[in-house]
Amino acid sequence: MELTRSISKPTLLLNMRQVQKNIAKMAAKAEASDIHFRPHFKTHQSIAVGRRFKDYGVRKIAVSSLDMAKYFSDDGWDDITVAIPVNIRQTELINHLARRVRLNLVIESNASLDYLRQNMTSRLNVWIKIDAGYHRTGIHWQDTQSIIKIAKAIGSISMLRLDGILTHAGHTYHANSIEEIERIFYQTIDRLKYVQSQLKRENIPTAISVGDTPGCSIVDRFDNIQEIRPGNFVFYDLVQMDLGSCKEDDIAVAVACPVIAKHESRQQIIIYGGAVHLSKEFLKASDGINIYGRICNLADSGWSASYRKSYLSAVSQEHGIIQSEPELFKSVKEGDLLGVLPVHSCLTANLLGNYLTLDGEQFTMFHYRQST
Amino acid sequence: MELTRSISKPTLLLNMRQVQKNIAKMAAKAEASDIHFRPHFKTHQSIAVGRRFKDYGVRKIAVSSLDMAKYFSDDGWDDITVAIPVNIRQTELINHLARRVRLNLVIESNASLDYLRQNMTSRLNVWIKIDAGYHRTGIHWQDTQSIIKIAKAIGSISMLRLDGILTHAGHTYHANSIEEIERIFYQTIDRLKYVQSQLKRENIPTAISVGDTPGCSIVDRFDNIQEIRPGNFVFYDLVQMDLGSCKEDDIAVAVACPVIAKHESRQQIIIYGGAVHLSKEFLKASDGINIYGRICNLADSGWSASYRKSYLSAVSQEHGIIQSEPELFKSVKEGDLLGVLPVHSCLTANLLGNYLTLDGEQFTMFHYRQST
Repeated sequence: MELTRSISKPTLLLNMRQVQKNIAKMAAKAEASDIHFRPHFKTHQSIAVGRRFKDYGVRKIAVSSLDMAKYFSDDGWDDITVAIPVNIRQTELINHLARRVRLNLVIESNASLDYLRQNMTSRLNVWIKIDAGYHRTGIHWQDTQSIIKIAKAIGSISMLRLDGILTHAGHTYHANSIEEIERIFYQTIDRLKYVQSQLKRENIPTAISVGDTPGCSIVDRFDNIQEIRPGNFVFYDLVQMDLGSCKEDDIAVAVACPVIAKHESRQQIIIYGGAVHLSKEFLKASDGINIYGRICNLADSGWSASYRKSYLSAVSQEHGIIQSEPELFKSVKEGDLLGVLPVHSCLTANLLGNYLTLDGEQFTMFHYRQST
Repeated sequence: MELTRSISKPTLLLNMRQVQKNIAKMAAKAEASDIHFRPHFKTHQSIAVGRRFKDYGVRKIAVSSLDMAKYFSDDGWDDITVAIPVNIRQTELINHLARRVRLNLVIESNASLDYLRQNMTSRLNVWIKIDAGYHRTGIHWQDTQSIIKIAKAIGSISMLRLDGILTHAGHTYHANSIEEIERIFYQTIDRLKYVQSQLKRENIPTAISVGDTPGCSIVDRFDNIQEIRPGNFVFYDLVQMDLGSCKEDDIAVAVACPVIAKHESRQQIIIYGGAVHLSKEFLKASDGINIYGRICNLADSGWSASYRKSYLSAVSQEHGIIQSEPELFKSVKEGDLLGVLPVHSCLTANLLGNYLTLDGEQFTMFHYRQST
């Protein structure tokens, strides 16, 4: 009981063996399809987790901010895509990074491109962000006129090199079946292939990069693309399980939370663990209930399968309410620990800021919290 | 333009003059009612903001974790209520703190009380947590038998001193009108007075402590209670504005976010600023739309009134989507900054971890993030 005994407050547990399995599986699939595997490191935000990817041949990464690019470049990563439309207010950092590493930026705006043209001091690689149907951001895939125009503008700047076209098919997260995820994934590739062919007619060669965890988890092969950029798969979570992208056993993180109160009449267990630990992300169950996490038992070796009829039903800033089945309710008392499988592991990891592996190793992430 | 020019990424702006007004108003109301004002510091989590309360005579505070109690005790605060059912896995920290300050714990469980009896080494003050209708946690106000039982158990432990009964009437957050908030507030006090009278019959004197921002903001006087513990009022936010607890001018924080893309056909502006900066808390508008923030213009002197017909309509990890009215859409370009009024300021502050005042002062909070 060494590991669990050491835990006194909400703590992010990391099953590193499962992390390695998740990386190995995705890396093998990319290798079998002979494409580049550029994992998105925004999920774990940690140098220690990042190093595990090196064991599987990963040399290229994606991140979600320039600051995160700097953090990983300090650990030797030297081919980094900042997979968000470029923030030109950080041109100084862009120039700093571009001198040290192969920095790949995402461009979709002529105004941002103009600014870079005037203010960058080192060579940069760029990807054009395409909206293939998600409608978060990017140039619409059918607006080939604008895509060709910006591709030519990039081509006219000697310090820029156009690597390819990139999309995030985030609408797979709204899919209702594995088949629908698959359909969106292939539709996305078809749309990008169309864009690629239009650019080719203008003698502008481009690679294709896609990267959502649901799509990359569900399909068996990656054809007609050159790169995938999934991130969440390293940990997975309840959202992915709900979508069918993973099984519960694939989830590599759980939050250990102390029990602080019990209410028998309502069959509710109160844990120290709330929105500042888990986030307010929830899953909508078929009966309209909001699920903020699934509950499991903890042991030094890891965690159990989750209780089928118990769930985290509400979170306030530091409290969580577990709606409990009788077996769970009877088995715990104040001072015990329970595990919570997170709804969205990226947000939970970001909030907790520190990992504790099942071997008792501790490490902090990019935006680390002061340990107190 | 010094202040705004210095901002390159999502940044929590703090209007310290408004903070002082918010503190002054609540402190004056407590003083006029001749009760203790014990502000909850979980909203700001900052030594620098905490010090401003001292100017208004505040000497007692509430916090939401033992670690936060330690943080503020290190800055000289010496009367601290940890306003969450006690986490007995942190008894070592409890003993450490109890030696240094007047530490007030919240008790509702006999099991936790037994554990403390056996493991505490210093004198402690305790409050019994009462559920006055919110049903998050606490002993139900009508279950006077259990309340009297635990009060007597506390009385039998020489190192414990029972200060009073405490509740958080969080159901004011679900109220649909100011009148309903007021009704819940007075109902809560009536219920606690009933508990107090039952304890008095057993010769157990107790004070009453209540503390939700909606109730404390709306009522003019605090009668029949001895202490208030509001927290959010120091910053306020869109939730409070929606409830009627504050006006927009009372909101003392906004998040400055760079514009990174625009989509004219959808009239959407994409900002660098997402769930890891603002949280996923949203307000449900009357037409069913989710609002993740309100949008304003920034200047060195502060921020403008929010746009009436524009709002943050979605957040992913680092992106935010503003659904924009034409006037706003036309006025901004990539690289500009916009301000976002947060839905829930406690969670937003907790995520950003650093403040920038309108005077250009910077300070970090309790769980600070590494500055990069």
